[in-house]
Amino acid sequence: MTPAQTAMLDALVPVLGRKGIVTDPAAIAPWLVDWRRRFHGAAPAILAPASTAEVAAVVAAAARHRVALVPQGGNSSMVGGATPPADGSALILSLRRMNAIRRVDAAAGLAVAEAGVILSDLHDAALAVDRRFPLTLGAKGNATIGGLVSTNAGGTQVLRFGSMRGLVAGVEVVLADGSVHDGLAPLKKDNRGYDLTQLLVGAEGTLGVVTAATLRLVPVPAALATAWAAVRDPQAALTLLRRFQAATEALESFEILPRESLAAVLAYVPSLRAPVAAEAAWHLLIEHTDPSGDALMERLLGEALADGLIVDATLAATATQAADFWRIRESISDSERALGPASQHDLSVPVDAMPRFMIEAAAACEARFPGTHASGFGHLGDGNVHFHVRAAPGTDPALWYGEHVPVVTRFVDDLVIAAGGSIAAEHGIGQMKLAELERLSSPARLTALRAVKAAMDPLGILNPGKLVALAPSAAAQ
Amino acid sequence: MTPAQTAMLDALVPVLGRKGIVTDPAAIAPWLVDWRRRFHGAAPAILAPASTAEVAAVVAAAARHRVALVPQGGNSSMVGGATPPADGSALILSLRRMNAIRRVDAAAGLAVAEAGVILSDLHDAALAVDRRFPLTLGAKGNATIGGLVSTNAGGTQVLRFGSMRGLVAGVEVVLADGSVHDGLAPLKKDNRGYDLTQLLVGAEGTLGVVTAATLRLVPVPAALATAWAAVRDPQAALTLLRRFQAATEALESFEILPRESLAAVLAYVPSLRAPVAAEAAWHLLIEHTDPSGDALMERLLGEALADGLIVDATLAATATQAADFWRIRESISDSERALGPASQHDLSVPVDAMPRFMIEAAAACEARFPGTHASGFGHLGDGNVHFHVRAAPGTDPALWYGEHVPVVTRFVDDLVIAAGGSIAAEHGIGQMKLAELERLSSPARLTALRAVKAAMDPLGILNPGKLVALAPSAAAQ
Repeated sequence: MTPAQTAMLDALVPVLGRKGIVTDPAAIAPWLVDWRRRFHGAAPAILAPASTAEVAAVVAAAARHRVALVPQGGNSSMVGGATPPADGSALILSLRRMNAIRRVDAAAGLAVAEAGVILSDLHDAALAVDRRFPLTLGAKGNATIGGLVSTNAGGTQVLRFGSMRGLVAGVEVVLADGSVHDGLAPLKKDNRGYDLTQLLVGAEGTLGVVTAATLRLVPVPAALATAWAAVRDPQAALTLLRRFQAATEALESFEILPRESLAAVLAYVPSLRAPVAAEAAWHLLIEHTDPSGDALMERLLGEALADGLIVDATLAATATQAADFWRIRESISDSERALGPASQHDLSVPVDAMPRFMIEAAAACEARFPGTHASGFGHLGDGNVHFHVRAAPGTDPALWYGEHVPVVTRFVDDLVIAAGGSIAAEHGIGQMKLAELERLSSPARLTALRAVKAAMDPLGILNPGKLVALAPSAAAQ
Repeated sequence: MTPAQTAMLDALVPVLGRKGIVTDPAAIAPWLVDWRRRFHGAAPAILAPASTAEVAAVVAAAARHRVALVPQGGNSSMVGGATPPADGSALILSLRRMNAIRRVDAAAGLAVAEAGVILSDLHDAALAVDRRFPLTLGAKGNATIGGLVSTNAGGTQVLRFGSMRGLVAGVEVVLADGSVHDGLAPLKKDNRGYDLTQLLVGAEGTLGVVTAATLRLVPVPAALATAWAAVRDPQAALTLLRRFQAATEALESFEILPRESLAAVLAYVPSLRAPVAAEAAWHLLIEHTDPSGDALMERLLGEALADGLIVDATLAATATQAADFWRIRESISDSERALGPASQHDLSVPVDAMPRFMIEAAAACEARFPGTHASGFGHLGDGNVHFHVRAAPGTDPALWYGEHVPVVTRFVDDLVIAAGGSIAAEHGIGQMKLAELERLSSPARLTALRAVKAAMDPLGILNPGKLVALAPSAAAQ
């Protein structure tokens, strides 16, 4: 522990008490490695304030002592966004003790949740008053509201109600000097200058520490229809997507996966069965909450079958069957991991460009890196897929991750930029993509990102080394 | 003209040509006064670039010569946001020649419009491909896309699809150093750091010059139902609002006005008639696009009549009748102006708090300023009303505006802040509310606004004196 860290902790003992300062290495250890176990950090202490005032005291002390803080919620970042630097220079600021749902207002369709509230707990609290918080994702049992806001999280239900950015009506945030900005009031129109709420959403804890958020709730749908369809290619899937969007505003999911992803899941999870009998190169999981329910789904899929747009389809007849369709979708990552090491890319392009991108980028990767297998799956309706390039069979994992993945990553990222897309669709930048963001951003974007960072965190104490470096990072040289 | 301005113009002649530089005082004059004729500025020239590259050249030259620019579109700001400073230190940067609609994509539901495109032209272009750009407002024949984006404009159709912030999928913007940030790609998920698009929306041209925007289009509704209802008080109106919201997601307008506003309109526009016979203290204009059309409107209003929530109601039987209802709503400002000078406030509070605020704030104003008459009208569904305090009969206008209005403004603004609201709901800050924003913002908010401004426009050349001053303004002392 540095003398500054020691002095800071000493100053915080009367504020946080014993429960609020963790220095036992065994208790700290689980929070030093990221979800995917790709990044390993060090930190001599975890600070765990229980109130906004305590967070403010922590940040003010950090500013005074020039000690960096790494805000952490459920530690489920996919890009090392919540893992402290390896040199032990930063302390972890855990928001998990701030786990109150301060208010749920069914009539107004709003909830105020503290940063440490776990997503599935918010789902439950909304359902208890007959409302729904529509955003969900695989890590819902770990991911916290503060992290979801700070990463502008996405998931499989973004199509209709948007990412977190669209669901956040306001935030309470502790700024880098320890002052508190209370932006929780749910004002539908508020033009008092730059939108600080939207600036903090997706800022990955580098501009301020989100301590609570006002979140939009939506009605619980009266009807839910879930279907599986098989198609020849992503272009046909796009055509079907547009038909659904023309027919209903209540399309909630439109997920795509290639045959080999389905096969990987069926091999990995023996209890699951292929939803349709037809052999097809691509598969779709479609869900809507249109009041007409299955009738609309049947009509649109029936028409698509009749005119040859799809080759097969089936509606989930029961909630269990629908859940099985979703288990297939949600098992892809684990199932593919069992096939060997891969370079994984969370990317987006304009929706209309995605079918062509999926085909051409996979072909380009396999041509450029012989023996590899490339394919994308995910949120076609959002123009966002998870694009995986699997190592040639027999490749040494250490060699793959150490030497090949950076090369593959640059190759894929160049394809994304050429297609007008984003190299960070829903997982953010964190530390994993920082160098690539610098390499691929226009001077205008990079200048603006750095200027905002320097303005809001002039001492560089908030999640340093994530999202944007104040000076060009060594890795980008 | 200052030597720096002369040097800058000389440098720009080869770039902009004769059409792009206006120095004739008669041609400049109309653009030196704001829409409400409350602010008068001076500028030795208008620069009118015709392309993004030309805008970039103008801003780069302004940075080089340290000459301030005032971006201007339709010049319909309600807060002096586009009026240059009175000392002639700034040049007007008109975006009106950038008026191309670059793309309209019905299938994707997107349009790319340059900053100078007039709102009603965008409406027409969308309708031509059977789509709708849902935002509209009184100044639609003048207001431009650049201004609407830069002020996060609202209007009467915000309830369902949101303000401009919710309709902007991306922006192209020239930053203060003349570099161009191309954020037009319509990526539904993009977490490449701080959201520069959202930062520019509502920034009033103080962080960059918006040159084009990608905008969301929505389907043309199959049904439209418009009704007028009379209610006893705003609380009953709120109850009715919640019933509509529970019944349909397609509620598009829920406007409220007091009896005296209706009377003022009927006196001022002789061709209009009172929609309902009943005498009631408050009136509502309700519009939805639920597919069930009039049936839903009839059912909900019938139930409300039956249980005494409303005292009278009528559905618009024809499009002409619906248009007449809207003419009443849109004639309020002009009609009330004819009654005498007023202090006008564009404010918002949480929707649930608005009924009580409307009653109590009006009573408080009339008690504090004897002889005045206070009332609010507008977007109840958005928690946003235009609150007018009319001078006591016989008050000298010069005295009223010069001495009373500032006092009334501070009084009203204090009430708004006490109610957890915003003193700038949809009209922005401009120069009119800058001092009040400084007076009423928390240190955290003000520090953040100033930091962002200084970071993005370090030379202070973009719309100086609007939104936030880099140093505390004299007026706020």
